[in-house]
Amino acid sequence: MKTATFTLEATDGDARAGVLRTAHGEIPTPIFMPVGTQASVKGLTPDELESAGARIILANAYHLYLRPGADIIEAAGGLHAFMSWPQPILTDSGGFQVFSLASLGTVDDEGYHFASHLDGTRHTFTPESVVALQEKLGSDIAMVLDDVAPAGVDERRAREAAQRTLEWAQRAAAARRRTDQLAFAIVQGSTFEELRRENARALAELDFPGYAIGGLWVGEAKNHSLAMTRIVCDELPADKPRYVMGVGTPEDMLACIARGADMFDCVYPTRCARHALALTMRGRLNLRNARFATDFAPIDPSCQCPTCARFSRAYLSHCFRANEMLAPRVVSLHNIWMMLRLSEAARAAIQAGRFETWSEGVLASLGAAGREG
Amino acid sequence: MKTATFTLEATDGDARAGVLRTAHGEIPTPIFMPVGTQASVKGLTPDELESAGARIILANAYHLYLRPGADIIEAAGGLHAFMSWPQPILTDSGGFQVFSLASLGTVDDEGYHFASHLDGTRHTFTPESVVALQEKLGSDIAMVLDDVAPAGVDERRAREAAQRTLEWAQRAAAARRRTDQLAFAIVQGSTFEELRRENARALAELDFPGYAIGGLWVGEAKNHSLAMTRIVCDELPADKPRYVMGVGTPEDMLACIARGADMFDCVYPTRCARHALALTMRGRLNLRNARFATDFAPIDPSCQCPTCARFSRAYLSHCFRANEMLAPRVVSLHNIWMMLRLSEAARAAIQAGRFETWSEGVLASLGAAGREG
Repeated sequence: MKTATFTLEATDGDARAGVLRTAHGEIPTPIFMPVGTQASVKGLTPDELESAGARIILANAYHLYLRPGADIIEAAGGLHAFMSWPQPILTDSGGFQVFSLASLGTVDDEGYHFASHLDGTRHTFTPESVVALQEKLGSDIAMVLDDVAPAGVDERRAREAAQRTLEWAQRAAAARRRTDQLAFAIVQGSTFEELRRENARALAELDFPGYAIGGLWVGEAKNHSLAMTRIVCDELPADKPRYVMGVGTPEDMLACIARGADMFDCVYPTRCARHALALTMRGRLNLRNARFATDFAPIDPSCQCPTCARFSRAYLSHCFRANEMLAPRVVSLHNIWMMLRLSEAARAAIQAGRFETWSEGVLASLGAAGREG
Repeated sequence: MKTATFTLEATDGDARAGVLRTAHGEIPTPIFMPVGTQASVKGLTPDELESAGARIILANAYHLYLRPGADIIEAAGGLHAFMSWPQPILTDSGGFQVFSLASLGTVDDEGYHFASHLDGTRHTFTPESVVALQEKLGSDIAMVLDDVAPAGVDERRAREAAQRTLEWAQRAAAARRRTDQLAFAIVQGSTFEELRRENARALAELDFPGYAIGGLWVGEAKNHSLAMTRIVCDELPADKPRYVMGVGTPEDMLACIARGADMFDCVYPTRCARHALALTMRGRLNLRNARFATDFAPIDPSCQCPTCARFSRAYLSHCFRANEMLAPRVVSLHNIWMMLRLSEAARAAIQAGRFETWSEGVLASLGAAGREG
């Protein structure tokens, strides 16, 4: 008997702990996934990511299609070999990037027609071409192309996007050739509850190995994002992993776990680090703040990461002021470390049946930090 | 009996192999010293520098005086603790940086009067204040303040600078308090042979624990730099280490070793890395070159560094094009690694009495690389 792709190991309220099996290894959930858009998690080596406990990272099919091109990555032996990352990789389809980065873009039933944000050349992405692209890249999880409709679009457009996303998911499923790659469908529907429900139900019937919630966490009110996350999770099958795209902060990740989501990705920890923001269980520290110039404690005295073992806030503060590239690098490692410890701890709390209590404690601590930082 | 600060272990022609003893450990010579001007070797952690075999690094008293300030570094427990580097540190006095970076600077017998390149504030460096500054920083080797006269100044100015450098060296020696810090004097004299000889002889009589050759390798013709290096080395006592400031490329380091110099520092390997230039024993590779986009070999197949173990030229080429900060970081590590292997190999060749033959082979290989890169 074939081993299930996803096993739900424990539930605690709506929160879930599970294991997702991929061609490059098993992924415990809930899981935070560091983002390496251009086949590099900014500033960090694969060794560091593994030491931080990363179990899966993201890359982006749109970016890699434009540069260096899928042929080069295929010639390298696939994305894992190209970037020297031996564990699972999820590739986003590029729909959101076309939507947010490319210019002069149009979408129709065929797909996206857009101009590269790098050189203005014209390209078309179809559900089928994006499947082929990601099969060439060789990622473990491939997102289907979706028609992104964020908060703020009218219901007509939201309905069109959800319907098109459904049709594209069917076309993508039909186009698949590789059996060692899991395709995840993406639920759209903007902030329209009934649309989200309908889209989730219809996609669930297509029996994809996993589902994502797209078009959220891009600037809309947080209560909308959380409401949509709950609604969609309620509709999705329990035996499939649920990935909330673009989440996020520690607080947002915990809120989504509480609503039944399993997988999360965000540039937040590495982007924060480049802006001198260190994440701790007691909130965010702005290392450019004057008071850190003479603070010889580590970022987080309770943290076991190599950055906290080696460097003081004062030294990192100096390095940020002096524009030393060491600072964003080692704070990125710390921040990724922190997010991964948080998703690990959430999993342990769910398995122990004390997620809500644990989460309340963490959120109070994170909030205390907000006052402090 | 007190152990000698410097022991000359072997000579081969004019090339020398020795050991320099400092408060934070012994340094085999010849040695390349990575530069961490602002208390950070750009992009690299102390762990990486140690894994690359670094035995001593540089920092700059002028830069650290301006930012973060010596009081903060003293409060951290000194420069070693501040930057988390347990091995020897040499601090440059700042004379050259005042000369090259500060604006509205004047020099007189008292010292340098200058405006900070960061915020325009006015400061004065005297031989005595620079001793006190470096004693506060707690470096193992402190350079005396020198009056820098590079190639191109007239003989009157060169003579003035050499004479002033001599007087400042005497004042610096008188101002010293710490016994766990070695002061190195700096020979000036521009490109005037007789001035260089006189200055070296006069400084040698002051019995400093080490000597540096300053004011060279800043853009003048290389045959001048090498001629001055030979002349000064001939005048300096054999039982003291000789440090050629600002060298340099692999070729220049070998040429200076052949002329009797022992210690070298340069931003060359890390600066090259930030410009996508990888150093190899077969010359420099420009990783932005189109042909590397599909070259899946490591930078140098014979190199044992973590970068060559993990990443291909094609991947690094992609990361440079995509402005991924991982690329300058890991190529910096490779380049530092290469320079350290080169100074280690030079030492072994001297001890084996085959420096000239070995060096000719290396230079031929480096030149072959120049054609290739």
